[in-house]
Amino acid sequence: MNQDELKALVGKKAVDWIKPDMIVGLGTGSTVKFMVDELGRRVNEEGLNVIGVTTSIRTKKQAESLGITIKDVDDVDHIDLTIDGADEISDDFQGIKGGGAALLFEKIVATKSKKNIWIVDESKLSKNIGSFPLPVEVIPYGSGTVLENFKQKGLNPKFRINEDGSLLKTDSGNYIIDLHLQEIKQPHELAEYLIHQVGVVEHGLFLDLVNTVIVGTQNGPQVLEAR
Amino acid sequence: MNQDELKALVGKKAVDWIKPDMIVGLGTGSTVKFMVDELGRRVNEEGLNVIGVTTSIRTKKQAESLGITIKDVDDVDHIDLTIDGADEISDDFQGIKGGGAALLFEKIVATKSKKNIWIVDESKLSKNIGSFPLPVEVIPYGSGTVLENFKQKGLNPKFRINEDGSLLKTDSGNYIIDLHLQEIKQPHELAEYLIHQVGVVEHGLFLDLVNTVIVGTQNGPQVLEAR
Repeated sequence: MNQDELKALVGKKAVDWIKPDMIVGLGTGSTVKFMVDELGRRVNEEGLNVIGVTTSIRTKKQAESLGITIKDVDDVDHIDLTIDGADEISDDFQGIKGGGAALLFEKIVATKSKKNIWIVDESKLSKNIGSFPLPVEVIPYGSGTVLENFKQKGLNPKFRINEDGSLLKTDSGNYIIDLHLQEIKQPHELAEYLIHQVGVVEHGLFLDLVNTVIVGTQNGPQVLEAR
Repeated sequence: MNQDELKALVGKKAVDWIKPDMIVGLGTGSTVKFMVDELGRRVNEEGLNVIGVTTSIRTKKQAESLGITIKDVDDVDHIDLTIDGADEISDDFQGIKGGGAALLFEKIVATKSKKNIWIVDESKLSKNIGSFPLPVEVIPYGSGTVLENFKQKGLNPKFRINEDGSLLKTDSGNYIIDLHLQEIKQPHELAEYLIHQVGVVEHGLFLDLVNTVIVGTQNGPQVLEAR
């Protein structure tokens, strides 16, 4: 099977976790796109009743075009389940997200969800996370100072730039500093350090949020549950 | 003496801490205004050489009009001393700032400073802080959820609004939620809780940053040093 076929099977499989009348967080990404397609099919063909909460304009448009009811995160009092991708997942289900620069909205939705499931291809699995650069969203004012502090702490920071060389701005108007760390052995310690830095809005470490991961393999979707 | 005379004396007194060739953080507020006036006088009349770093457009304009050299926070590798106001200060020198909605930039500068001094009038001193509402800067997306969480924790939160009833936006485009707490007995615990909430950018608790406070009293400026 090619990558798209693997992703389509994973996306379809993930919809099994969505039950009638759930409020469901819908992530972003190529695998999530297949999941939303399947969810739309079940809403239309099987009359499945769900409310979706999205973290990106792209997914919002796709879901609405399929007839899935969408509400703003502040217009629901809870989220039952969020299905999203991840950029890297460790053996013990800690993750890095933010490759698409949407980590802040994704974390707001994930934190509000009773359960989170990540759907990925095999390339996203690592023993420890860190080979994917860790995104940190920072306030522009004073961001040079934050970068300098990261540098002195050996975190190998780089501002994320657009193709034209300008600094990338998130949907909240902030910058992203990517930490090129190779390996993060103590993600909780790093998260504590980052969240205490003045000027840091949020970071891409998603810790202790997920206990179900669905992986696309040549043998079909494989469901991993946290031990 | 009237309030302005008291403030002028405090502002003047504070400049005694500014030594030649220092990089000085210049806060904002009515007492700070008198301090910047005096600093300008010493720069012009006595040839005092300093570089200023400001946290507001108002102070920047005043300082530049007085001929004080101003640099951006990211264009200096350190700040020797920051002199700023505060909205409330406890017996043990913990403070609340953010009444002017500039807490984020103020905290970025304060955190970069080797020493911070607060200059205030007597009304700002309390046994415990908390009678002044504690400002929390939050990302607009999901801010209703953050408010709801604060409510359920009994923090008595209210969005800060403009005179026309619209939500106030900070210079970074975020909202302010004010926590009406009356008294904060455990400021460190509250700060830890707040900084871990996804969607919170920064809060107005300025803890363990200041050990010198200059207070305007009818007997003249009084210098309080932390025990």
